[in-house]
Parts: sequence; structure tokens; C-alpha cells
Amino acid sequence: MERTFIADLRQHIGEEVKIQGWLQVLRDQKKMQFLVVRDTTSTVQVAFWKGNDAALAEQISTLTTESALTITGTVVDNPVVKLGGLELQLASLEVNNLAESPMPFEPYGDTLPQLDFRMDWRYLDLRRKENLLLFQVQTTAEFAMREFCQQNRFVEIHTPKIVGAPSESGAELFTIEYFDRKAYLAQSPQFYKQMAMAAGFERVFEIGPVFRADPSFTSRHMTEFTGVDMEISWTQSHEDVMAIQERWLNHIYQRVKDVHGEQIREVFNHEIVVPTLPFPRIPMAEVIQILKQRGYQLPADKKGDIDPGGEREIAAYVKEKYNHDFVFVTDWPITARPFYHMRHPNNPNLTMSYDLIANGLEITTGAQREHRPEILKKQALEKGLHLEPIQFYLDFFRFGCPPHGGFGLGLSRLLMVMLGLNNIRESVFLFRGPTRLIP
Amino acid sequence: MERTFIADLRQHIGEEVKIQGWLQVLRDQKKMQFLVVRDTTSTVQVAFWKGNDAALAEQISTLTTESALTITGTVVDNPVVKLGGLELQLASLEVNNLAESPMPFEPYGDTLPQLDFRMDWRYLDLRRKENLLLFQVQTTAEFAMREFCQQNRFVEIHTPKIVGAPSESGAELFTIEYFDRKAYLAQSPQFYKQMAMAAGFERVFEIGPVFRADPSFTSRHMTEFTGVDMEISWTQSHEDVMAIQERWLNHIYQRVKDVHGEQIREVFNHEIVVPTLPFPRIPMAEVIQILKQRGYQLPADKKGDIDPGGEREIAAYVKEKYNHDFVFVTDWPITARPFYHMRHPNNPNLTMSYDLIANGLEITTGAQREHRPEILKKQALEKGLHLEPIQFYLDFFRFGCPPHGGFGLGLSRLLMVMLGLNNIRESVFLFRGPTRLIP
Repeated sequence: MERTFIADLRQHIGEEVKIQGWLQVLRDQKKMQFLVVRDTTSTVQVAFWKGNDAALAEQISTLTTESALTITGTVVDNPVVKLGGLELQLASLEVNNLAESPMPFEPYGDTLPQLDFRMDWRYLDLRRKENLLLFQVQTTAEFAMREFCQQNRFVEIHTPKIVGAPSESGAELFTIEYFDRKAYLAQSPQFYKQMAMAAGFERVFEIGPVFRADPSFTSRHMTEFTGVDMEISWTQSHEDVMAIQERWLNHIYQRVKDVHGEQIREVFNHEIVVPTLPFPRIPMAEVIQILKQRGYQLPADKKGDIDPGGEREIAAYVKEKYNHDFVFVTDWPITARPFYHMRHPNNPNLTMSYDLIANGLEITTGAQREHRPEILKKQALEKGLHLEPIQFYLDFFRFGCPPHGGFGLGLSRLLMVMLGLNNIRESVFLFRGPTRLIP
Repeated sequence: MERTFIADLRQHIGEEVKIQGWLQVLRDQKKMQFLVVRDTTSTVQVAFWKGNDAALAEQISTLTTESALTITGTVVDNPVVKLGGLELQLASLEVNNLAESPMPFEPYGDTLPQLDFRMDWRYLDLRRKENLLLFQVQTTAEFAMREFCQQNRFVEIHTPKIVGAPSESGAELFTIEYFDRKAYLAQSPQFYKQMAMAAGFERVFEIGPVFRADPSFTSRHMTEFTGVDMEISWTQSHEDVMAIQERWLNHIYQRVKDVHGEQIREVFNHEIVVPTLPFPRIPMAEVIQILKQRGYQLPADKKGDIDPGGEREIAAYVKEKYNHDFVFVTDWPITARPFYHMRHPNNPNLTMSYDLIANGLEITTGAQREHRPEILKKQALEKGLHLEPIQFYLDFFRFGCPPHGGFGLGLSRLLMVMLGLNNIRESVFLFRGPTRLIP
């Protein structure tokens, strides 16, 4: 018999079906046994009259919660039952995997252990309905990202994660033993997505891992995360890049709301708000003024950067003034930006760059890139870089590399913001941090 | 002015438009100059009458091929012109990036350098029409993969690439310096996609990098490649897994043929054949007999595995007998398979596993997994593994992990086969091998 998803049972009233899933609750009464069984689509009540088969009743009474079961039975309309107004009258039971008891914790129990303990038993934690929904939302969001790319002539690329030279300053770099030499883990696909511009691909995107040997333990950092990168040829400034990113995000939010909005309201008590276009844009210099006026003190050592508190404060300002959850902070000083960001022709201390802050959290850095080889080389030297290790990168610009810009977005940060979570460890399949490699 | 893609010029006859692209050919004649300009959609002839503007004519005559240009002009119907029967009459020219001359090689020149030299200048090599098409095909193929997954309730996951313990035998493992300890690069998402089964996700897929410290230099091996992985709960045997994979591949081939079939014929002189369902299946024991009968001598040291010559020979047999390009070779001996493959209940020396051979090249390994913790542990010990480093994996099966199976496919191998290429280095954005880390 073909397996029927629980969500589809109503189409089979009166029929014998097979369902497969996990035992969420067992109520063993005097004459009846009730099993609440869950699959990825829904939950259903399964009923068994003990008098029908004493041996089977005996077996059911020994079932532990979270065991994996295959059950056949007849679907019966029953308006009294809370779960969908129907129940399944059990005919046969196969125990595919009996859960050990007690479990480290019950995913559908009354109390939820601390995050760190849940991370030790992540696969049990992932059984919670919040987590299944979160990864269903991620799937839909990524599909919407690619759908937009597909409609706009983007090429999907997979750039190497093992690299011979660092793409940024060299800090936060993991070293690999690569046969008889050293290699490194890519901190971003930056150099290689730009190579795709030199290759004439015009528009590319990549969704893949990026690695940062960052020893910090904040609620927004990971040593490995999934980066979403886009790079677009023939942009004239970061404004062109922002214009694409906001349309893209609008499409993603709309799709997630359409598919999961109602369930997100139920499970997370959170409303998906599709951001209106255009997003507000505020130059960095103005942001500093606004923060000052609001009495927010930026740390002195930030070299023109904003700290997380400042990000939340400017987001609060934008929410009050524009009723918008997103804000592009533009035109960052060169001190806070890497050498490959293009500079304003009329103000060489400012880059043509932006950060995107969503609900108070930075989720994107983007920029127009410097594509003129001589200027790029000069900017690298100014930043104190050695040219020899990045010569292969500088070469990309020698034979007709078009002007281009792009951005990178952290997938788990986007999910945090989208679903209103307060720790990135809750929005990633498996967290990696300085002291966390298992499971 | 908005930029117009060259492929769309016919819709703008008589209008002034802006195009952007690369100078492929310059023909500088006495009175006229003709520029063939290419973007990702097509090529067009641009004409300029020197008498119009002597300074501009002078500038055009200094243009090097492969320079990045922005050109405005009027689109004119001209049936004599080979490129689409139209031309652009140049009004203005902006040189966005003048290519140095001479180039290491001309992507649209008459002779093609050796592969290794082209890999040194991969971004120039990627400008060739074969390569742009290849990555457009890859984009479509991946989109079709995810479309199938979307329609069949799969969840997309991103598993960690930095791992605390190896998932396989420990050979071919890259070591990372991870703060004050050692970590490893994931050789496959095997353990973690199985974790998603323990997490009750039921059906997952991942497209991401996998790493193999394999010192070989063949035309089919890389130290880093893009793996496509699926894992499906409630399968009863590898037959269930094969049934899904063949439907999935059929969908991918159909989509690629629909979108790019004609262009693949033109550019690669290659016909996309959508594989019919079901694919032939031949048990391994029978394959050995067939190879013997055809006089193919398998190497003695293969422990029940087939060598590449054997793969080509069995593919030739299948092509002759069934006129099919694909064959599932099933039921491999336990000596050739890892500990986590389920074994046949009636023949404990055979695993419920398969390889998929496409046009003579192995592109997939798949299996029903052993989900019963005691048997899994026993099989690990039999293979000589230490339990302690994989205890976190064995734990996945303790609390109701359903039966499941899955497979992994190499993306670049699929492209090789799909487009009839004979070296995997031609079908990957940037090749990584024991001696190749740059660019």
C-alpha cells in the first residue's frame, strides 16, 4: 500500500490507508488506546479498541514516544476529534524504530532544556514543530531566491572553498594541510564571483558555505555559515546593486508569506511583513548624526563602523520615521571597507558601498567594485596588502573586466530576522563555533 | 538609457538602444568600421562610418579584442548581415575596460591552447561560448533538481563542512587547524543528511562542496567538488531510492533539453537524450558474468568493485541490449561498501546498494541505510572502525530514526556526461587538484 501523508487524510474518509510517522502522545485507557502520530505534514489521532486484539493492545502499551511507526487503518470522520475532525482506526502496526526511554529530552514535552543542551541533541531539537517549519521556510526562501535569479538571467556558480590565498586581510582564516603545503578555507566567494564577471557571465549567484576563524561567542556569529552571494556586471554604482537586492528580498518575503505566513503566525506568533519598495537609504555620515541626536554613543574604536547597538538604534529610528524594517546604510568610509570597494569620484574617503540592516541586524554588505586594475592595485597597497598573493586576483581585471557590483547575505541571519528569533544557533541546521564541532 | 540585451535587439528596429558587452572582432576598413560585440545572450554587428567623426573612428581603431564596451546606436534591419539580419549603427562608445594586448590567449581565436594553460587563465577560457553555455546548463539542471524536490516535499539543508570526526574510513581526509585543535573537511554530507532523517525531516537534499584528499590525477577526480545529495525516509530498499533518482534525472534531462537542447546541438554537436523510465538494473554478480563473457578482465585487487574500463564495458553492453545510456548496478558485496549500507536479509554478504553508471561513467552511489542501532554498531566494528569518534552518529538511531535511503551525485560528472565532455576539468568553474590551487 502507498503511504498517505497525514495532511491528505481527509481525502480518504472511509478508506484504508497507510501512514508513517512518530508517536507524539500515547493515551492508554481502560478499553481504548489513542496514539497521536506526526509526520512532516500534520498530526492525527489513531484509535484502537483493545478488545479487538489483546496482543496488539499489549504491544501498543509498550510504545515509547518518538518511536517511528507504520500504521494502517480506516479513516473515519469524527467532528469531536480536535486534530482535523477525523481519526484513523488502527488495523495494523509496524514498529520501525522503537525510541529508547527515557530520551535526553522530549521534543514535544512541557519544558524545553537550555539551548546548549538542545544543541548536543540537535536531531531531537529539530523534531520540534518550530524547527521543521524553519527549514521549510528556508527551503521556500532559497527557492524564491533562485527563481528570481532564473528570471533575471543569473548563472549559478560553485566557487572553490579551498583557496591558495586569502581574499581578505588574512585574519579569521582557517589553515588546511593540503598535501605537502598549506591552503586556506574561503572566507567568502568574493574573488571568485568577481572572476565570473571577468569571465563575462554578467550575473551570477552562489549559495554555499563560508568560513571565519572568528573566536567570538555572540548570538550572531558562527565559524561556518551559508552565504548567499550575487554579483552583477554593468552596474554603475552601489545604488544599482541595492535596487536589485531590494526587489529580490521583496520577492522572497512575498513568497514565504504566501506559502507559510499563516503557519508562521501560529507557530512563532510572528507576522511576515513584506518590505515595501524602495527601502530607506541613509548615508553613514547621516547615521552618525542621527545616533548622536538620539543620544546613542558609538564606541570610539570602530573606525567608522557601527556596533550592534547602533544598528538597533538606527533601525528604531527608521521604524519610527518610515515604518520600515529595512534600511540601507550607504557610503561607508574607506577605513571600514576592504580595498576592492570602489570609491566616490568626488570624495575619495568614501566607498560606494552599503550595509543592509534588517530589524536591527546587519544581514548584508554590498558595494560597487573597483574594476580598473591600476586603481585597484593602488588601493590594495594603501591597505597594506602584499600584491604577490593576490596577483591572480588583480589579473582578473586586465582583459576587459566590466564594471560590476554585488553583495553577500547570511542565510541564517535572514531567517533569524524573518522569523523573529534572537539567536542564530536556533536558525542553522548545525551550529559551528570555536568550541562546538559535535554533532 | 536602459541596457538592451543583444538577443532582444530585433524588438527595437529603428530605435536607439544601449548595448553592453565584449569586442569579439574589429574589422577596420577604409571607410567603415565593423565591431562584433557579444553579451551573454547573443552577438551583433556594430557599424560605424568613419566620416561621421574622425576622433571617434581613431578611438575605435585602437580597441583591443575582449575589451568591455558600452555602445549606443540605432538598430537597423539588414538581411545581408549574418548575425541575426540586423546591425547597430554606432552613435556613442564608452570603453569600460580596455583589454591589454596581446592576451595570454584569445577566447575567440582560431587555436585553443592546452587545457592546463587554459586553466591558468580560466576566466578567459570561460568566455568561450561552450563554457558560458555549460554553466547556463548547470543553472537550469540545478533549478530542475530543486523544482522536483520542491514538488515532492523535500527540505533543503546545508550541513557543516567543518567536522570533528571523519564520516568514512579516514583516508582522503583534509585536516584543518581549528583554534587549538584539529578538525576535518567533510568528505560527504552522509552522516548529517542521515541526521536529518533522525530529525524527522523525511526528505532532504543538499547541493554543496565535498572534499577528498585524493592524490590522483585522472580525468574524473577532483579534491573538491559539488555534491548533490538526497536522503529519503520510509524507503524499504535501494529499489525505492533508484525509483526516485531515475524520475528525478528524467525531469532534469527533459528540462535541459527543453531550454538548451538546440543550442547544445549547435555548440557541442551533441544531442541531449532524455533517458526513458525505468533505467535498466543489473545486479553486480551478473555484471561480473557479463564482463567475463565479453572478455573484459577486471583487475584482481578491486574487492568486488568495477574499474573505469569495466564501467565503460557494461555501459556498452546496456547500450547494445537496451539502447539505454544509464544503468543501475545493484547489490554490491559488503567488501566494496561502507558499514552503514543495509545488507540483504537473505544474503548478509550483499548490500542493498547501487551505483549509477551514465554513458560509461559512475556518477552516483546510493543505498538503503542500516537504521537499527545494534546492527549498525556491529557492522561498524566488523569494518574495523573505532566506535568512539562516530558515537554521535550512532546516537542518531536511538530515538525513533525511521528506515531511509539516499544517494550522492557529482554535479560536474553529470555535466560531463550530459554534454559529452571527456575531462571533468572542463565541466567545473575552477578545478582543484593535488597541485592546482590557483586561480
